Amino acid sequence: RGERGGDRERSGRVKDGKKTEQAAPFLAAAAAVAGGRKGENAMGRRIYEHRAQYYETDQMGIIHHANYLHWFEEARIDLMDQMGMGYDVMEKQGIISPVLSVHCEYKSMVRFGETVQILVHLKEYNGIRMTMEYTVLDKESGQLRCVGESRHCFLTRDGKPVSLKRNYIEMDRAFREYTQQEESGT
Amino acid sequence: RGERGGDRERSGRVKDGKKTEQAAPFLAAAAAVAGGRKGENAMGRRIYEHRAQYYETDQMGIIHHANYLHWFEEARIDLMDQMGMGYDVMEKQGIISPVLSVHCEYKSMVRFGETVQILVHLKEYNGIRMTMEYTVLDKESGQLRCVGESRHCFLTRDGKPVSLKRNYIEMDRAFREYTQQEESGT
Amino acid sequence: RGERGGDRERSGRVKDGKKTEQAAPFLAAAAAVAGGRKGENAMGRRIYEHRAQYYETDQMGIIHHANYLHWFEEARIDLMDQMGMGYDVMEKQGIISPVLSVHCEYKSMVRFGETVQILVHLKEYNGIRMTMEYTVLDKESGQLRCVGESRHCFLTRDGKPVSLKRNYIEMDRAFREYTQQEESGT
Amino acid sequence: RGERGGDRERSGRVKDGKKTEQAAPFLAAAAAVAGGRKGENAMGRRIYEHRAQYYETDQMGIIHHANYLHWFEEARIDLMDQMGMGYDVMEKQGIISPVLSVHCEYKSMVRFGETVQILVHLKEYNGIRMTMEYTVLDKESGQLRCVGESRHCFLTRDGKPVSLKRNYIEMDRAFREYTQQEESGT
Repeated sequence: RGERGGDRERSGRVKDGKKTEQAAPFLAAAAAVAGGRKGENAMGRRIYEHRAQYYETDQMGIIHHANYLHWFEEARIDLMDQMGMGYDVMEKQGIISPVLSVHCEYKSMVRFGETVQILVHLKEYNGIRMTMEYTVLDKESGQLRCVGESRHCFLTRDGKPVSLKRNYIEMDRAFREYTQQEESGT
Repeated sequence: RGERGGDRERSGRVKDGKKTEQAAPFLAAAAAVAGGRKGENAMGRRIYEHRAQYYETDQMGIIHHANYLHWFEEARIDLMDQMGMGYDVMEKQGIISPVLSVHCEYKSMVRFGETVQILVHLKEYNGIRMTMEYTVLDKESGQLRCVGESRHCFLTRDGKPVSLKRNYIEMDRAFREYTQQEESGT
Repeated sequence: RGERGGDRERSGRVKDGKKTEQAAPFLAAAAAVAGGRKGENAMGRRIYEHRAQYYETDQMGIIHHANYLHWFEEARIDLMDQMGMGYDVMEKQGIISPVLSVHCEYKSMVRFGETVQILVHLKEYNGIRMTMEYTVLDKESGQLRCVGESRHCFLTRDGKPVSLKRNYIEMDRAFREYTQQEESGT
Repeated sequence: RGERGGDRERSGRVKDGKKTEQAAPFLAAAAAVAGGRKGENAMGRRIYEHRAQYYETDQMGIIHHANYLHWFEEARIDLMDQMGMGYDVMEKQGIISPVLSVHCEYKSMVRFGETVQILVHLKEYNGIRMTMEYTVLDKESGQLRCVGESRHCFLTRDGKPVSLKRNYIEMDRAFREYTQQEESGT
């Protein structure tokens, strides 16, 4: 009860074979994290938590699937804040970071009143674009609720594509430092 | 202005090379449809329209990306209704159809007051699961706004997986007939 | 079944005795309208309709109460559009019209798939502020679902209060003409 | 900048003269509380906090007004939880508590990233109905953002009105004890 789909749905794969391999180590890390020091992940960053609200439910008695995109956004903004790239900082630079695509695999249902932990991982950053990866776990049981990812570019306020690498060197450095820390697990 | 990302984002591909080939003919058909008889697609089914609401905007001045999942749902429910598989029908049979995954590629921005057409296509159905494909077009210009897909399974009210093929033969037939009509383009 | 509260809740009153008397004639008119020419009210204006969406439900199996404010907004924007004061027109003049207060009395529940008619009435306009009144009816049965009102002022984009009466004479005239039409019932 | 409406809007009054007198002492208490022990009000109950999310903004660059009803709900559920009447407890008893009416006066705007404190007060309880009163304050400045109230009844799952006073004596006692504590300020 409560599980969505069959066994094939429960694995960590995001979409196809190639994804699985990429996703697996992160998921393993995520699982480790959830059992680790409360409220922090391996890099000493706080883990984002969200309590599922009543107004997020639907008549199936579960959290409506569109709300997970809200949760991804909450956790992504929190991570960028910790990286020193909070929305206020980017806005002062006149940069926005719209969503190019989003993907979400629902593994098991979330119910009203449950607290989820949303782990975010900067999977790719190349100076022009970035990909964020999300793992949603039930706080109490550690059970996997959902995995997802979102891709973003950087634009000026009037909609022109921006290369952080070329024109916003400090922001570019913050991203690269963060990526390296994640890779080395420091 | 208004475009998200670079040229590589504008093609019809959903995620990878293989998807492109599958998606392309549907997109071509979708484009044809949008220029065709008002309010109907090639199969004589009504085209679902949604007017972008003020409360759907965010402070970037565009429709917030999570709302597209709402639009997919609206259009999907409308299609199932036309197939004779409306929510009321399924509910009477005690069947729900939760979302297993959702994917969305944002091609260009939608603004408050614009009307979009949401074309839905039953891409796969095997008696146990289905995949729906979505194309969101600006009604006025026909410009591509977004492509997406969602996967669903069928469950009983108490959460057990259901094979329509085995246990709900009439619903299964409705799905198969619809799929064949789409393939033959009748 | 489906009714909220007791008999005292079902009368047309919005909050107190005085309100009742004001609201009653409008409600009577509203009821007449709902039985009148399809899609139009007594003044030849189109009646705003909204189909209750699945994503608007909550786990009580009804439309979540916060969504009614969305519906009020949809209907208000539609009315202003018909008055020649669409959002685009006001925006071109650099004027916004934020909500000062909102009130909503829930009379009976709306369920997924039902269509509601939202009647809007410009109750008060004095050149600086306006009050809108709403009646939500079930399209099929004409049953009263909800009554409400919202108050608004007019601001410039940078937040300064605006007197339409003094500085935006054409918009002021549109409001006054509309108010007179409503009063004379033409 | 950021203020809604004129001076007359800024007073604590909810709707009319009578309300003002009732609301004023609560507002004074609320103001005192916000400056008091962090995260607790005078009765030792935790103060509910909500961080305004990006997806809650609209294209005016502020939090869309409908979201305040979500915040009221979050804070109300949290209070009931502290009273020992959490949603799970009531559900086990087969009781739901739908919203009969809601009222909201917007005093000043909330922007993305700001944290608000939502103070809730059980204003009236008579065994059949209850009225909750809300004050939303900016956490940092203590500035008043919004006041509101909501009325509720109690129903069985199949929609029949319930008298807690008669049939759910323990829940009734919890409400009465809470009301007395509030009145005596203990």
